[in-house]
Amino acid sequence: MSLPGHTLAPVSVPDPVPVGVVGASGYAGGELLRLLSSRPDVTVTRALARSRAGEPVASVHRGLAGVTALAFEPLELGRLDGVRVAFVALPSGESMAIMPELRERVPTVIDLGGDFRLPNGDLFRTFYKKEHSTPSLLGHVPYGLPELFRQSLHGASLVSNPGCYPTAAILALAPALRAGIISPTGIAVTALSGVSGAGRSSDEALSFSEMNENVRAYRIGTHQHVPEIETVLERVAMTRVSVSFVPHIIPVTRGIYCTVHAPLTGNVSTDDARDLYRSAYRGEPFVRIRESVPELAHVSHTNFCDIFVASDPRSGQLIVISAIDNLVKGAAGQAIQNMNILLGIPEVTGLL
Amino acid sequence: MSLPGHTLAPVSVPDPVPVGVVGASGYAGGELLRLLSSRPDVTVTRALARSRAGEPVASVHRGLAGVTALAFEPLELGRLDGVRVAFVALPSGESMAIMPELRERVPTVIDLGGDFRLPNGDLFRTFYKKEHSTPSLLGHVPYGLPELFRQSLHGASLVSNPGCYPTAAILALAPALRAGIISPTGIAVTALSGVSGAGRSSDEALSFSEMNENVRAYRIGTHQHVPEIETVLERVAMTRVSVSFVPHIIPVTRGIYCTVHAPLTGNVSTDDARDLYRSAYRGEPFVRIRESVPELAHVSHTNFCDIFVASDPRSGQLIVISAIDNLVKGAAGQAIQNMNILLGIPEVTGLL
Amino acid sequence: MSLPGHTLAPVSVPDPVPVGVVGASGYAGGELLRLLSSRPDVTVTRALARSRAGEPVASVHRGLAGVTALAFEPLELGRLDGVRVAFVALPSGESMAIMPELRERVPTVIDLGGDFRLPNGDLFRTFYKKEHSTPSLLGHVPYGLPELFRQSLHGASLVSNPGCYPTAAILALAPALRAGIISPTGIAVTALSGVSGAGRSSDEALSFSEMNENVRAYRIGTHQHVPEIETVLERVAMTRVSVSFVPHIIPVTRGIYCTVHAPLTGNVSTDDARDLYRSAYRGEPFVRIRESVPELAHVSHTNFCDIFVASDPRSGQLIVISAIDNLVKGAAGQAIQNMNILLGIPEVTGLL
Amino acid sequence: MSLPGHTLAPVSVPDPVPVGVVGASGYAGGELLRLLSSRPDVTVTRALARSRAGEPVASVHRGLAGVTALAFEPLELGRLDGVRVAFVALPSGESMAIMPELRERVPTVIDLGGDFRLPNGDLFRTFYKKEHSTPSLLGHVPYGLPELFRQSLHGASLVSNPGCYPTAAILALAPALRAGIISPTGIAVTALSGVSGAGRSSDEALSFSEMNENVRAYRIGTHQHVPEIETVLERVAMTRVSVSFVPHIIPVTRGIYCTVHAPLTGNVSTDDARDLYRSAYRGEPFVRIRESVPELAHVSHTNFCDIFVASDPRSGQLIVISAIDNLVKGAAGQAIQNMNILLGIPEVTGLL
Repeated sequence: MSLPGHTLAPVSVPDPVPVGVVGASGYAGGELLRLLSSRPDVTVTRALARSRAGEPVASVHRGLAGVTALAFEPLELGRLDGVRVAFVALPSGESMAIMPELRERVPTVIDLGGDFRLPNGDLFRTFYKKEHSTPSLLGHVPYGLPELFRQSLHGASLVSNPGCYPTAAILALAPALRAGIISPTGIAVTALSGVSGAGRSSDEALSFSEMNENVRAYRIGTHQHVPEIETVLERVAMTRVSVSFVPHIIPVTRGIYCTVHAPLTGNVSTDDARDLYRSAYRGEPFVRIRESVPELAHVSHTNFCDIFVASDPRSGQLIVISAIDNLVKGAAGQAIQNMNILLGIPEVTGLL
Repeated sequence: MSLPGHTLAPVSVPDPVPVGVVGASGYAGGELLRLLSSRPDVTVTRALARSRAGEPVASVHRGLAGVTALAFEPLELGRLDGVRVAFVALPSGESMAIMPELRERVPTVIDLGGDFRLPNGDLFRTFYKKEHSTPSLLGHVPYGLPELFRQSLHGASLVSNPGCYPTAAILALAPALRAGIISPTGIAVTALSGVSGAGRSSDEALSFSEMNENVRAYRIGTHQHVPEIETVLERVAMTRVSVSFVPHIIPVTRGIYCTVHAPLTGNVSTDDARDLYRSAYRGEPFVRIRESVPELAHVSHTNFCDIFVASDPRSGQLIVISAIDNLVKGAAGQAIQNMNILLGIPEVTGLL
Repeated sequence: MSLPGHTLAPVSVPDPVPVGVVGASGYAGGELLRLLSSRPDVTVTRALARSRAGEPVASVHRGLAGVTALAFEPLELGRLDGVRVAFVALPSGESMAIMPELRERVPTVIDLGGDFRLPNGDLFRTFYKKEHSTPSLLGHVPYGLPELFRQSLHGASLVSNPGCYPTAAILALAPALRAGIISPTGIAVTALSGVSGAGRSSDEALSFSEMNENVRAYRIGTHQHVPEIETVLERVAMTRVSVSFVPHIIPVTRGIYCTVHAPLTGNVSTDDARDLYRSAYRGEPFVRIRESVPELAHVSHTNFCDIFVASDPRSGQLIVISAIDNLVKGAAGQAIQNMNILLGIPEVTGLL
Repeated sequence: MSLPGHTLAPVSVPDPVPVGVVGASGYAGGELLRLLSSRPDVTVTRALARSRAGEPVASVHRGLAGVTALAFEPLELGRLDGVRVAFVALPSGESMAIMPELRERVPTVIDLGGDFRLPNGDLFRTFYKKEHSTPSLLGHVPYGLPELFRQSLHGASLVSNPGCYPTAAILALAPALRAGIISPTGIAVTALSGVSGAGRSSDEALSFSEMNENVRAYRIGTHQHVPEIETVLERVAMTRVSVSFVPHIIPVTRGIYCTVHAPLTGNVSTDDARDLYRSAYRGEPFVRIRESVPELAHVSHTNFCDIFVASDPRSGQLIVISAIDNLVKGAAGQAIQNMNILLGIPEVTGLL
């Protein structure tokens, strides 16, 4: 049946941009493949992984059967020659070794791991428990949080995609810190993560029988996202920032729910605080300032960050809550948002 | 940043097709709005609901904030004048009253409820516990299961979208019944549904505290999907079909997992049975014949129906398992698949 | 088969103590009935409820079929004549009206609601949004948290059982506040509750479809447990205490997980803090000071409160985490612990 | 406070019966320790495990901190000298090797694994994929399903505790088969298991991220419980029985939910069928014949088996549904029930 008045005119459509994924067998890699699969303007041509070379991508990401016909290739960087953008979704600590060669072969690299997020090798050593191989690069790689650093991304050949907790915590705190309505110290961040944040895992502690009907805090005071949150916020606040950060695993698959208590520096009403946040994120397509409390389910499978702010004058604290999908805005979605910016494609393409 | 060689030529893009949703405040309505929101070729212009007129759609489907600016309108059919396709996502038993007027106003109607799925008023009365208002229509409305009845859909002005359980059960059984490798009687269908299958609910029995760590069978032998499954399969098998059907609610939000035991009529190997199913669904973009057992998670948020078949010669039974997302292939996704067919748009548009 | 050497000698066993439950149809009432059902020394003789009079208790608490033969009786207090202890498990705000008559009829009353937990009518009005009917009683009812106030319970005719959040928060904070190692202001309490904390509910927002894969903060700064936490801690700290409290619902049925950040007043190591807590709770059968992070699953279906404490010198905060089962240590179990104390029975009876 | 009239007279209480657990680090072992911990008449004196010798039991079963002070001992059978009853909770296939020596050292052994449930070595080899070391024992070990075989348990020195699926399936089918109201062939059993049924696991497929919002059938037609179900039912029905069995893992931690479709041999009403089941299980403390559909939550953490039966004359099938807690009636609880019988203790002791 043809539809009168809606015939598509023949047009010359440009070739899709070829992109590659390094570390394609994990959850973030799978989410990249899923999100990119429906786009006509971008095509994943290479899926590299440490193992399973030759096997169909859909043998691991079984939901992608019928969606992608790609097979995994070994992690040999020469296979990426010709791709325009490479996403690196390796475990933290593994991308720094391949980065020099990778950047020679691929014009634009977006690293989803933690290797290039900290400003210096000392912090990296302290929190990642290993020596950085190219510490001179640290402090010079743009941090791919477009809502705060969009200008620095244009033209970059390497972008460091933020961590999941930092995305939620930094977006929650930046406007208040910048405006000075909260103290830069004494900030308490309690964050809840879905289990997929730990990646594909055969850890018994992450088995369904152990995690169902359970909650577990972990890495109190030592999580590698602490210095990422603090140093990025310091760039925003122009002063030293100290955050007490307690991450938790809860029995959901996806999501980060971040609840912040921060000492108010003066009298600020909830309405004023909300106006401040609205103004700070005006025009941002993926930040929603909410009048009611955010829910994880509202951001699930989306690139949104929902933020709620309330003043609690009784206790003198500002309460800020943010919610994201850890695999989308906290990883693959934000990486694609960065790719769109770097390629000059409308930023929301494929994400709304 | 512009991308050399990838500049889009200016083309005259046709206006998007205007569509309306009647009963837009429920889960199926919300899923329709979500799935259609990213399409450039179709636009939802009207969202009618029994209540909440004037309120933003995103006040109910809060995940759609920033995605749709629509507001609910009262359920007055004149408001649909000008739309090309109307989806009716009302509770079963509510669409038959508005259908005569609706069909005069809108060229194409796709009914997601159960009002027009059965072949006669007697069955309707028995299983829906009410009198049908236009029984003469029953038996004449195409059944929108494209994998079996695609030809009958072309040019239709009203299509009855299948139920969630029937979609899974019928696709699981049709090839074997048509080929005669299983008996048309003595078929046992045990089906598991996510809780969203009950719709938005304030039923205490469906509260989290009651459903978590729980399983509950219900409506054994009396579910309104029994005659839908049997009568549709009878059209396929050309003989009387009898199914023993036990539906269950399990603690997942989305999905139908359908496990069938059917008496083999002769010796059939698993390989032969799988070849039969592959052949039956060859070229179908949304049916995947699996070599390993299906998982609900592999079809979640997709329009796929995954099917697995195995012969158990020891017990003389054919085991068939099918899995769908109840809100997508079992409701909104299949409705959009039907719309694509009816509008002459490629069938997979917006669904892969 | 008889077991040589293990024949029980005939002894004169005392009659079991008769107890009654007022408000027996809710979750806390059901947990009381379940926990008491296996005790030979106590017997529930009356189960009063606002509705369902005449129906078996097991028609509501269906897991108790075969365990109790009790039927619900109407909420007429004369029916409690002869019981030794009455548990009142009515919604907060409903027990104050019946308390004067109830205390005349029953020697010992344990109220699981919030009516008698606050020290004055002003706080009650502010946080419970209603006028207290006997404000003169407020401030004079022992608070049934044995670990802090055991001495005050002996001989009491009315005990106010603590709220679930307060039980977890107060036990987490009391030792540090009493010792002065944390500041009494600037304390951030982020607490996660299982959905059963909301009681039996037909609220759509608490349906499985809405709560699964979801997290939702609520009543920020206005929860009625805020003044309970603060005023009880003030008795411990002997100074004004201010807590910023954000409760959350998470997708588990049972449990409270409470994460506290509190400003350290000086240098305290984790080891010192843990020793302080060990010393504070030495000999307490239901408080376990943990060396690893608590998990909700470890306290589920038990009367334990697990506590973990860590010093984060980097941020100058003491982190304390406590975990309880909201229906046991947070309600019915603690009420039974109080009953044991009041009856002079070993405190752990029926709870280990 | 002393309680007038309720003073306990000093009596000579017999020493508790010493029992041991072999394989104490798994879920069934932990459940045994938990269920036995509150009993005054039985005491676990030995907890043997393949690893972790010397570590506290509560370092693995962390919920048991404060409940048991036992430490794991190496799996050396001499350590069991002096215990009256040994529970063996090793993975299937591991108990047969130690059984000869174990029976010499311990008067009564209850094996929770599958090694002694089948009647001959051929079936064992086919379904357990290994050779049995003492096939001559097979067929001579009492099957510890008291509701059907209580008489055969008295005086036994070795009892084979039923599997979790078989407990549910056999109790569901035995009355109908024995009465001849269903055909012994053409029986379809669809069973749903909580993830704990797979034991402690570091299998990625059983991780929370993979199992949440998921369902997965497995081992179709080849599960080792198939011959256990069939051969036990054959003893009941006195004829060959054939069952088509499809087990599934669903996202709950505990429970077996078993839905049976079986061909009726004649006209039987639901009322008649229910009367038949009531009569078959009259006086059984742990079987509840339900008039409404069973729910997993009603049997969770209990030793009950809830059964529902309905005739579906339309399809000519009898529907039977049974529900148990896989770790209690499906493992540790039933083992304790067997111990009670073997020791001549009231059968429900410690289980109600």
